[in-house]
Amino acid sequence: MEITVLHQVMEWNEDVSAEVRATLREKRVCLINVMGSPGTGKTSLLASLIAQLRGEFSIGVIEGDITGQIDAEKIAALQIPAVQLNTDGACHIEAMSIQNILPQFDLGNLDVLFVENIGNLVCPAEFDIGENFRITILSVPEGDDKVKKYPLMFTDTDCLVLSKCDMLPYFDFSMKTVQEDYRGVNPEGPLFPISNRTGWGVGELADHLRRRIRSELS
Amino acid sequence: MEITVLHQVMEWNEDVSAEVRATLREKRVCLINVMGSPGTGKTSLLASLIAQLRGEFSIGVIEGDITGQIDAEKIAALQIPAVQLNTDGACHIEAMSIQNILPQFDLGNLDVLFVENIGNLVCPAEFDIGENFRITILSVPEGDDKVKKYPLMFTDTDCLVLSKCDMLPYFDFSMKTVQEDYRGVNPEGPLFPISNRTGWGVGELADHLRRRIRSELS
Repeated sequence: MEITVLHQVMEWNEDVSAEVRATLREKRVCLINVMGSPGTGKTSLLASLIAQLRGEFSIGVIEGDITGQIDAEKIAALQIPAVQLNTDGACHIEAMSIQNILPQFDLGNLDVLFVENIGNLVCPAEFDIGENFRITILSVPEGDDKVKKYPLMFTDTDCLVLSKCDMLPYFDFSMKTVQEDYRGVNPEGPLFPISNRTGWGVGELADHLRRRIRSELS
Repeated sequence: MEITVLHQVMEWNEDVSAEVRATLREKRVCLINVMGSPGTGKTSLLASLIAQLRGEFSIGVIEGDITGQIDAEKIAALQIPAVQLNTDGACHIEAMSIQNILPQFDLGNLDVLFVENIGNLVCPAEFDIGENFRITILSVPEGDDKVKKYPLMFTDTDCLVLSKCDMLPYFDFSMKTVQEDYRGVNPEGPLFPISNRTGWGVGELADHLRRRIRSELS
């Protein structure tokens, strides 16, 4: 399957997030911005969520990467429309790039558009790309001090996924610390501990997203 | 021990890396820029390297974090001069901040100044902070595709450390892939697989740094 690769608009970013949001509302497409560090398991989790949600929703994916198309190929292999966005060095995705990419999708026949942001626990949180809601992923091997050290990514999210929980026996990681720190910066945000490898917790996360998507599309 | 916390200079960054480099050369201090993703093990490795190198060199540390002083406290507990640099949201360290912090150290009595950069596999690689050389750390749980996906961090470094190698049995990770990809973008750069937890490989890395530091200070 040939992957369409677009490059991030490099001019000074005009904030077109409101326009992106209006276009998607008109087409009844829910945009979900997926963020987290490099290697936290964003693409693998997307593949699992697609399996859980594709029975009810028509899904597309924008794969953000600095270079290459490894992730878009993984998604396209699932027979899901995937477009690779290469930022050519930039550390986050901006709304202008999303606006630029939307014509690549058949929006009239799409319900959900996932955007996998650049692997980065800092910069993506600062940019509204027109999303309906955000998912932040933190993996157990990254350590339990990350909410304290990178607060914006946990404050400005609708949902925290704690991934690679099958690794808890091998790391000095306090779930309680993460829960308390997250509660401190984001009192209403739900937290989903999962292991994408074993499937543990992924069903609960998918149920939550299903309800959120239905609510956004209603 | 009270930690000095400085905040990153927020004006547009004038590139003062050459001035920082000149000051440190005059004072015979070797500046080492340590970079990698959140949770890749930068602070833990610094603690181990300090233990290995403090017999020969007088060492100081600048701990870069968006907020908080968790890491500077860990270093100060080792009776090593540590200054916390808070970037207040910024995703990397710039040379102006280093210039601003240098007066906090007794440079005449220092041989080595480590800078632990912000946890980020993208942006820090773009900024020369006046360092003598760079160490990039990649951890096994982040995955073996990271050199392909974040090439600049591996191209513009003097040495790659592959950390958390005691986790190799638990992850689908090909050392060969990382070695080949690294060789492709950085033909001369050495690669040190280590486990900071067990100590495996840390001695070889410390020996390499000892030689590099001696050479820089000679």
